[in-house]
Amino acid sequence: MSDTREQILEQIKVQGDLVRQLKATKESKEKLPLAPSSEGRAISTSVGQQLKAQQQQLQEQQQQEQQQQMHKIDEEVSRLLALKAKLGGDAAPANQKFTLKTPKGTRDYAPQQMTLRQDVLDKIVQVFKRHGGEAIDTPVFELKEVLTGKYGEDSKLIYDLKDQGGEILSMRYDLTVPLARYLAMNKISSIKRYHIAKVYRRDNPAMTRGRYREFYQCDFDIAGTYDPMLADAECVKIVAEVLDTLDIGDYVIKLNHRQLLDGMFEACGVPASSFRAICSAVDKLDKSPWADVRKEMVDEKGLDGATADKIGEYVRLSGGAELVEQLLADEKLKAVSNAVKGLEGMQLLLKYCSLFGLEQRVSFDLSLARGLDYYTGVIYEGVLKADPSAPPSPVKEIHNGDQATEQSSTVGSVAGGGRYDNLVGMFDPRGKAVPCVGVSIGVERIFSVLEAKFAASKVKLRTNDVEVYVASAHKGLHEQRLRVLNQLWDAGIKAEHSYKLNPKLLAQLQHCEEHQIPLAIVLGDAELAQGIVKLREVTTRQEANVNLTELPNEIRRRLQK
Amino acid sequence: MSDTREQILEQIKVQGDLVRQLKATKESKEKLPLAPSSEGRAISTSVGQQLKAQQQQLQEQQQQEQQQQMHKIDEEVSRLLALKAKLGGDAAPANQKFTLKTPKGTRDYAPQQMTLRQDVLDKIVQVFKRHGGEAIDTPVFELKEVLTGKYGEDSKLIYDLKDQGGEILSMRYDLTVPLARYLAMNKISSIKRYHIAKVYRRDNPAMTRGRYREFYQCDFDIAGTYDPMLADAECVKIVAEVLDTLDIGDYVIKLNHRQLLDGMFEACGVPASSFRAICSAVDKLDKSPWADVRKEMVDEKGLDGATADKIGEYVRLSGGAELVEQLLADEKLKAVSNAVKGLEGMQLLLKYCSLFGLEQRVSFDLSLARGLDYYTGVIYEGVLKADPSAPPSPVKEIHNGDQATEQSSTVGSVAGGGRYDNLVGMFDPRGKAVPCVGVSIGVERIFSVLEAKFAASKVKLRTNDVEVYVASAHKGLHEQRLRVLNQLWDAGIKAEHSYKLNPKLLAQLQHCEEHQIPLAIVLGDAELAQGIVKLREVTTRQEANVNLTELPNEIRRRLQK
Repeated sequence: MSDTREQILEQIKVQGDLVRQLKATKESKEKLPLAPSSEGRAISTSVGQQLKAQQQQLQEQQQQEQQQQMHKIDEEVSRLLALKAKLGGDAAPANQKFTLKTPKGTRDYAPQQMTLRQDVLDKIVQVFKRHGGEAIDTPVFELKEVLTGKYGEDSKLIYDLKDQGGEILSMRYDLTVPLARYLAMNKISSIKRYHIAKVYRRDNPAMTRGRYREFYQCDFDIAGTYDPMLADAECVKIVAEVLDTLDIGDYVIKLNHRQLLDGMFEACGVPASSFRAICSAVDKLDKSPWADVRKEMVDEKGLDGATADKIGEYVRLSGGAELVEQLLADEKLKAVSNAVKGLEGMQLLLKYCSLFGLEQRVSFDLSLARGLDYYTGVIYEGVLKADPSAPPSPVKEIHNGDQATEQSSTVGSVAGGGRYDNLVGMFDPRGKAVPCVGVSIGVERIFSVLEAKFAASKVKLRTNDVEVYVASAHKGLHEQRLRVLNQLWDAGIKAEHSYKLNPKLLAQLQHCEEHQIPLAIVLGDAELAQGIVKLREVTTRQEANVNLTELPNEIRRRLQK
Repeated sequence: MSDTREQILEQIKVQGDLVRQLKATKESKEKLPLAPSSEGRAISTSVGQQLKAQQQQLQEQQQQEQQQQMHKIDEEVSRLLALKAKLGGDAAPANQKFTLKTPKGTRDYAPQQMTLRQDVLDKIVQVFKRHGGEAIDTPVFELKEVLTGKYGEDSKLIYDLKDQGGEILSMRYDLTVPLARYLAMNKISSIKRYHIAKVYRRDNPAMTRGRYREFYQCDFDIAGTYDPMLADAECVKIVAEVLDTLDIGDYVIKLNHRQLLDGMFEACGVPASSFRAICSAVDKLDKSPWADVRKEMVDEKGLDGATADKIGEYVRLSGGAELVEQLLADEKLKAVSNAVKGLEGMQLLLKYCSLFGLEQRVSFDLSLARGLDYYTGVIYEGVLKADPSAPPSPVKEIHNGDQATEQSSTVGSVAGGGRYDNLVGMFDPRGKAVPCVGVSIGVERIFSVLEAKFAASKVKLRTNDVEVYVASAHKGLHEQRLRVLNQLWDAGIKAEHSYKLNPKLLAQLQHCEEHQIPLAIVLGDAELAQGIVKLREVTTRQEANVNLTELPNEIRRRLQK
C-alpha cells in the first residue's frame, strides 16, 4: 500500500498543478481585449483593422489554449489510468469471482442459433452471388483516423482500442468505410463485392429487438462509374430478393434521395451549413413523433419554427411515381436545382424498380433520411411490416434504456443503404472519386425474428450432420469401434461414437434418437466373427446385417433414399 | 467556447473537491493505530486480540478506501474524456492526409484470396462435421478478467480496448478460453463443438510466414467426462484428416504429454514452482537452438546448469511406441509418478492412433511443450515438413523483427492443441471441472502456403459464380436487358450485365472471357421482335437462338453439361 499512498500524494500534487494552470489560462484569457460587439460598427477603419488583428490573435490564442487543455486532459487521463492500474493491477487476485457474462450488448451463439444463422447467411450469399458479387474481408479494426469524420453524430459510438504503444486503432463501425479504404488503397475503380462480418457500435443495446453492440452486417456494394440508377436499382432488387428468400414476413422498401432532401431543405429555407444536422433529425422520424423531431430541429439545431413546419409538410409524404410528378410540379421545389435532380433520379429509379417487378414493394418516402453522413444520392431501407399475429420475442434480456413498448413485434429496419459517391475520394491522396452504391442487410434483427418463429413452432433444428453412430452391443469392443469409425471417416462418412470404453447399448441408441442421427451400427462379437455388423435405421428400428467391407457403400445407399 | 469555458471552471471545482477528498482519506488513514510490528510479539493476549481486530479494521478500511479511490478515478476519467470530447470532438481537420494502410500485422483479403480461403474453410468444416462437430460463436471481445491469468507469459500480447466508461474489455486471444467461459456460464458438461473465427495477438508479425496479429483459428474441441485418450486420439485423427484434405505437403504430428513433462522436470530436479516457466522455455526449441534455451533456463529462470543439462538429454528424444517403452524403463523417470502416468497415457494414445492408421504420421517428441499454461494432459502439434522444391513466398511485406532466414519455405506448425481439464473449472463458481481436449488449425499459415502454390502455378481462380451475362447488340436496349435479367434472377440463375446504358458489344464479350462466365445472352431488336434471343457459349463462341420463355430452362440444361 505504501507505494500506492505515495502515488496518491503525488497525484494530489499533480492535480493541484493542473488546477492552477487551468485557472491561469482562464485569467489570461479574461485580460484580452474584447471582441467587437454589434454596437461597435461605426468605428474608424484603422481601429477596425486593429480590432480585427486583435480578434484574430484572440482566436489563435483560444485555439492554442484549447489544444493545450486537450493535451493536459490526455496526460491527466493517462496518469489517472496508470494510477488505477497500480491500485488494482492487471492480475486478478486468486479465486476472484466475477459475473460470468459476455460484454454488454453482445451474445454467444449456441449450436441451434448457429444452424439458423448459417442458413440465413447462406441464403443471403446465394443472392449476392446471383448478382455477380465477389467476397472480400478486411481487419476488424482500422487505424482510428480511417474512421474519423465519416459517421457524423454517431462517431461517439465507435469502440477505440487502448493505446498499448504503436498505432491508434478503432473497431470497424460498418463495412462501408473499410471498403472505401480498401478501394482507395488498392486503386480499384470498379468492383461488385460482398462482405459478411461483424461490426461494433457502443450503442444502447436493445437485445429484445435484435439490436446489439456486436452484430453481423451483410453488405453488397457496386463501385464504378456507370450510368444513373442502373446499379442503384439492382441494389433495391437485391434487398427484395433477400427478404423474399428469407420469408420473414411482409415488408416495404422505402426510397428517398439525398439530393432531394437537400433541395427540400433549401426550398424550406434551411441554411446549407445545417443540412446534415437537420437530415440527422429527420432520420429519427422512424422512432420519434414529428413533435419531438421538430423540437430537436428548433431547440437543439437552431432552426426557426416556420422552417421546421415547412419541412414537416414534406416529410409526411410518401407514395409512388405519382408523388414524384406532384413534387416536380411543386412551386417551392421546382425552383431548386438539387430538388429537381433528386426527383428526376427518383423517377428513373422507380421505373427500373418497376421493370424488376418491385412496384408493390417500394415506397418513395420523404421521411427516410438515413443517419450516416456519407450518402450522396439514392437512399433506401427495407422495413418489416408489423405482424400482429407474431409471437412475442423469446429473448428475455432487458437492458437499460429499453422500454416495454420496444418489445413489440415491430423489428423495423432490416436492410438499408444508398449511394455514396465521395467516400472513396476522401481516402485517395489526389481525391480521385469512385462512385459507389450499396446495401447492408441487418441480419441480427432477421435472426431475432426467425428465432422467435422457431421457438413458437417448437421445431428442433438438427445442429450436427452425423450420419452413422457406431455402437457397442456389449463390453470390450472399443478398439473394434475405432477400426470401424476409421473406415467410415476415410470413406467420407460422418460418424461418431461414445467416448466411453463400455457404454450401455440403450444410452447409445437414445443418443441417436435425441440427435436425430439416421443410422446406427451395432457391433457384437458374434457378428464380427463372421465379418458383419448390424446396421439399424434409428427411426424405424429396423436392423439388417451388412458385410464390413460393404459398409460404406451400404450406408451411402441408405442415406440417398 | 463559452459553454466550454464554464465546463472547465466546473471541472476545476470538481478537481479541487477530489483533491480535498483524497487528502482527507489520507489523513484519516494516518490517525489509525499502527499495525503490530515484528518487535511487538511478546504482548498479552488481550492486547494481541485488540491489535488483531484493529489490524482487520485497518485492512477493511484500506480496501474500502482503495475501492473508493478507484471509483473516483473512474468518475474523473469519464469527466475528463467528456470534457475533451466537448473541446475537440472526434472530427478530423479537413483534408488530413495519412498513410493508407491496414493496422500492423493485419491484411485485407481480396476476392482471389477469399475464394481460396473459403475453399480451405469449407474443407475444414467438412472434416469437423464428419466427426459430429456443432458450431458455436462468441463475441470478439471478452471482459478482461475472463482472459486474465490464462495465458502465462503471453498475456502481454492481449489487445485491450480503451476504457470508454463501462466494462473493461479485451480482444479474444484464442477460441479456447471463450469456449471454457461459455461452458461454465451455460453449465454445459459435454459438447463437441467447432468454432471458426478471428483471434488477436499483439505479436511481432512475420507476415511472410503467415504469422499475423489478426488471424483465423479453426478449433474443434471435445468437452466431457470420458474414458482416457478416446477423444484425444480423435483430435489427432482430425488434424491428420484436415492436413490430408488440404493437400499442402508432407507433415508430422508431434505428440507429448504435460504430465510427462512435469514428471521429467521433477526427475531432473526442477522445483515445482518453476515447471511452467521451464516448460515455456522448452516450448522455444522449435525456433531456437538448445544452447539459447538452456541459457534462458539458467540465466533468466534461475535453473542450475546441471539440471538444465539433464533436461537437455530428454528433450532431444523422439520416436514411437519403442521410445515409450524405453522411458518407462528409465531409472530417473520411473521413480516419478507423474512421468509414469504421462508415459502410460502416451502408450494408449499411440495405440489408438495406430488403430486410426496414423503410425506413419505421429511422432512422440519430448521437445514439444506448447506455450499455453492451461494444458494438463496430451499436447500435439501438426508440423509441415520443409519442402525444398517449394517456391519462395509471394508475400513481399517484411516487417520489424523478420529475419531473412524466416522467409524460408518452412512454415512450421499448422495445427496444435491438447487436453485442458481445469480451464472450465476456473470459471465455475464452485470450481466444477469439465475435462476438455481440442485442436486448433492454423489456417493463416495454410493460406500462405496455398497462395504461394497458386502464384507459382499461374492458375486464375474464378472469384465470382456468374452463369450468364446479358449483353446488348446495339443501343437502346437497357430496359430489355433489365427485363431479361429479372426473369433470370427470379429463376435463380446467376446473371449480370454492364451498368452502362449503351456498352460496346466487344467490351461486353471481353468481360465474359476475362471473368470466365460460361454463357452470354445477346439481345437485338430483330430477335426480340420474334420473342427470341441469342445464347452464346463464351469459350466456343457458338450461338443459338432461344425462345425468351424457354431461356431459364435452356440455360440450366447447358450449365448441367
